[in-house]
Amino acid sequence: MPARTIKLGVSMIGLGYHLANWRHPDAPANGNMSLQHAMRVIQAAERGLFDMGFLADGVGIRFHDEPKGALCRTAKNVQFEPLTLLSALAMVTRNIGLVATASTTYNEPYHVARKFASLDHISGGRAGWNVVTSVTDMEARNFNRDAAPGYDLRYDRAAEFVAVVRGLWDSWEDDAFVRDKVSGINYDPTKLHVLNHSGPHFKVAGPLNIARTPQGAPVIVQAGASDQGRELAAATADVVYAAAQTLEAAQAYYASVKGRMAKYGRHPDELKIMPGLMAIPGRTRQEAQDRYDILQELVDPLVGLGALSNYLGDLSAYPIDGPVPEPPNRRMHSRAGIFLDIARRDNLSIRQLYLSIAGGNGHRTVIGTPADIADAMEEWFHHEAADGFNILPPWLPGGLEDVVDMVVPELQRRGLYRTAYEGSTLRENLGIPYAAFGKAAYRPAAE
Amino acid sequence: MPARTIKLGVSMIGLGYHLANWRHPDAPANGNMSLQHAMRVIQAAERGLFDMGFLADGVGIRFHDEPKGALCRTAKNVQFEPLTLLSALAMVTRNIGLVATASTTYNEPYHVARKFASLDHISGGRAGWNVVTSVTDMEARNFNRDAAPGYDLRYDRAAEFVAVVRGLWDSWEDDAFVRDKVSGINYDPTKLHVLNHSGPHFKVAGPLNIARTPQGAPVIVQAGASDQGRELAAATADVVYAAAQTLEAAQAYYASVKGRMAKYGRHPDELKIMPGLMAIPGRTRQEAQDRYDILQELVDPLVGLGALSNYLGDLSAYPIDGPVPEPPNRRMHSRAGIFLDIARRDNLSIRQLYLSIAGGNGHRTVIGTPADIADAMEEWFHHEAADGFNILPPWLPGGLEDVVDMVVPELQRRGLYRTAYEGSTLRENLGIPYAAFGKAAYRPAAE
Repeated sequence: MPARTIKLGVSMIGLGYHLANWRHPDAPANGNMSLQHAMRVIQAAERGLFDMGFLADGVGIRFHDEPKGALCRTAKNVQFEPLTLLSALAMVTRNIGLVATASTTYNEPYHVARKFASLDHISGGRAGWNVVTSVTDMEARNFNRDAAPGYDLRYDRAAEFVAVVRGLWDSWEDDAFVRDKVSGINYDPTKLHVLNHSGPHFKVAGPLNIARTPQGAPVIVQAGASDQGRELAAATADVVYAAAQTLEAAQAYYASVKGRMAKYGRHPDELKIMPGLMAIPGRTRQEAQDRYDILQELVDPLVGLGALSNYLGDLSAYPIDGPVPEPPNRRMHSRAGIFLDIARRDNLSIRQLYLSIAGGNGHRTVIGTPADIADAMEEWFHHEAADGFNILPPWLPGGLEDVVDMVVPELQRRGLYRTAYEGSTLRENLGIPYAAFGKAAYRPAAE
Repeated sequence: MPARTIKLGVSMIGLGYHLANWRHPDAPANGNMSLQHAMRVIQAAERGLFDMGFLADGVGIRFHDEPKGALCRTAKNVQFEPLTLLSALAMVTRNIGLVATASTTYNEPYHVARKFASLDHISGGRAGWNVVTSVTDMEARNFNRDAAPGYDLRYDRAAEFVAVVRGLWDSWEDDAFVRDKVSGINYDPTKLHVLNHSGPHFKVAGPLNIARTPQGAPVIVQAGASDQGRELAAATADVVYAAAQTLEAAQAYYASVKGRMAKYGRHPDELKIMPGLMAIPGRTRQEAQDRYDILQELVDPLVGLGALSNYLGDLSAYPIDGPVPEPPNRRMHSRAGIFLDIARRDNLSIRQLYLSIAGGNGHRTVIGTPADIADAMEEWFHHEAADGFNILPPWLPGGLEDVVDMVVPELQRRGLYRTAYEGSTLRENLGIPYAAFGKAAYRPAAE
C-alpha cells in the first residue's frame, strides 16, 4: 500500500486571494477576465501535480461597496462563470481536477446534476462540485428575494438538493449503453433508473439526460464550518475545504467531521479534509516577508474597510488607527466572530485588523522558506489536522508558481507528495473510489 | 458594400437529426457522449465557414417511451449539457459561432446572463443564446411541476426573462475597467449600472459579476412559430431558426416577423431568418437518394411510433399500415397540426407518416446534387423567404461533411457564400452590429 501523501488544491479564482492582488507589479491587471491568465494558472497547478483547481463563486458581487469607493478599488467584482471556465480549461489540461462552486439556494438540482456530469464527461473524470448555500443578501437580491433565507432553511434545502443530485447521477448504470447497431438496441432498459423524488423542497422525476460519468459521480466538496455544515459534509462530501488558524482548532474540526461519518456507513479515509493555507515562500524568511509586504503596502484603506464591512458592517466613521468597536451591523457569516476574537486578543486597531485579514481572510498564513512551509504542512498532516491543503495564492499566477517551484520539491524530497499523478480522474488522484451504481445516492442516517 | 450572402448554421446535437442516426454504418455509435465526435463535428462546420454551430436542448429526455421500447432504440436520450460543451469546443475553434439553448421557464435570468456572457468571453465573442420556453411535460417534471405552464404564461415569462438578461448584460459600459495600478482604481464607478429590475416574474438587482462581453451582448436566437413567439423574435432576436416546408409558408413567416420589427425601432436586416434545412447531397440524384434510404431502412417501427407519439400520442393500437387516425392524445406542440395536415393531404399510413418525418421532423428536406441543393437555397434566399439556413444533418459527422465538401463549394462558385470569415465574432460574421451600451436592453414597444 502506498504511503499516505498530502493532497493539494489551489484557489484559482481571478487574481488570487489578497485584497491588493491586481496591483502587484507582476500581476496581469485584467487577469480576472483573461482566459490566457486562467490557462497559465491551471497549467502551473498541473505542473505542480496539484489534485485540483478550485473556483470559489458567488451568484453576484459579494464585496460590499461600503464605504463608498471600496468596490471600485478591488478586482473582486467580475469573474468568469465557473462551469464554463472549467469546461474550457479541461481542454488544456490532462490530470488536474476541476472543482466549481454552485449554490443550492439559487439553483435547481436537475441543472446542477447535468452540468457537473457534463464537465465530468468533457474532462475525462476530473469534475468536482463545491456545494455552497450562499449566505449573502447581495446574491439573494439577484434571485427574487430581499435577503438570504435563514440558516436552517438553507441547510435543509441543501441536504435535499445534494440527495437529488446524487440520485440523478445514478440514473444510468455503468454499462447501460450497449449501442448495438444490428439489433437497434441503444441502451438496456433495465439499467435506466427513474428517480421520482418528491420531498419538502423538490419534486424531480428524472432520469438525467446524460450518461453515467467517468467517475461514476463527480467529487463533492464542501466547506461547512457550522454544525449542520459538518453533518452534511460527513454524510456526503468527498473533500472538505475548511478554515482554521491553529493546530488545535484544525484537529478539533478534523475529529468532529470524521467522527460523524460512521453513522452514514462511511470510513474516515473516504473524506479528505483540506484546510485553506496561504503559503508565501522565499529563499530566505526575509525574502518571503518582503514578498508579502509588497502586497500589504498596496492595500487601499477604503478596500481594507470594505473587506471588514463584509463581516462587521461599515466602520469608516471610527478612527482607522483606533480600536475595533463593537460592530454596528455585524453580518451573519461565521467568520465575523473569528475576526472580532482576533482583534480583541491582539488589541488591534481597525487598520491592523484589516491588514491581518487582507491576505488569508481568516485562513492560516505561513510566510517563510520552503522548509518552513513544508514543516507547517507536515505538522498538521501528521497530527490529524489535515489530509492536504487548499493553497490560497495571494496573487496569481506568481503566488502559485512560487509554491510549485519552491514548496512542491521540498514536499517531494520528504516523501510527502506525489512525483507523478496516480491516475487520470480526480477520484483516482484523491485516492477515493469510483462511485459505483447505488453508491452515489445519499441516504440519510437512520436516527 | 459587400453582396448579401447566405448564412449557415448547423444543428450539431448528438448524432444528427434522423431517428436512426446512430445506426448509420459510418456513425460512431457513442457519438452523443463523445467529446472527440463533437470536436470533429464543429471543426467540420468551421472548415465549411459556417456562421454557427447550434445545440438544441431539453432539460430532460424529450422522447416519449410510448410505445414501450421506443426510447431504448434511439440515441435521443443522453447528450452533453450545451454551455459546458460549447465552452470546451471554443478552445478548439477560432471563428465559428457557438449557440446553446437555454430555457426561460426553468432557469433564472441571472444564471443565464452570466453563463452566456462567460461563454462570450471564453470564445472571444462567439456566443449565442437560443431562447426556448420548454413545451414538454417531461421537462416540467424535473422542475417541481407535473406539467408545463400554459402557453401565455410561458411567453409572458420569456419576454420578461429576456429583458432582464439584456439589462444585466448592460451592467458595465465598454470601457468601465480602467485597472490603474498606480491610483488603485479598478473600474470607473460611473460606468457601472445597477439594473434593479422588478416585474411580475422576476426581481433582479444586479449588477452582473462579469464584464461587458466581446460582442457587447451574446447573439439572441429564437425559433418561435406562434404569434407571441414571432413578436418576441421581432423585439429581441438576432437570428430566427424557423420551420417551413414550402416557399410560400417561408415567405409568409419571413414577412410576418420582419414586418413586426419597425415598431421596436429595428431595421429588418438586424434579424437573420434561417429556416431548418435537411440537405442530403450526392454526386447524382440517385446517390443522394441512396444515402437517405440507408437511414430510412434503419428506422425501427417502435422508434417511428415513438416519434409520432411525441406529437400525436401513442398510435400503436392502430394498424401500422392503415390510415392515421384522429390522434387519441394530441400534444400541444405546434408541429402536431403540421404532421396531421401532411398525413391527410398525402393519404399516408402511420408507417408512411413516421418515415416522412424520420429525417427532417417537419423541416424542409432536399435530396439531390449539390446544384439541386444550391438551387433550393438560392430560391428561398432570393425571394424573401430566408437569409440563410440551419442545416440539419441526418447523421453526424458524415451528413455535415457531405454538405461542407459538396454544397459549400457550389454556393461559393455562385458567389452566394463567403470564402473566408469576415470577422472573429459571431456578430461580425452575421453582419449585425456590436451591442453597444444602452442598445442591448430590450425595451417593450409602446402600445
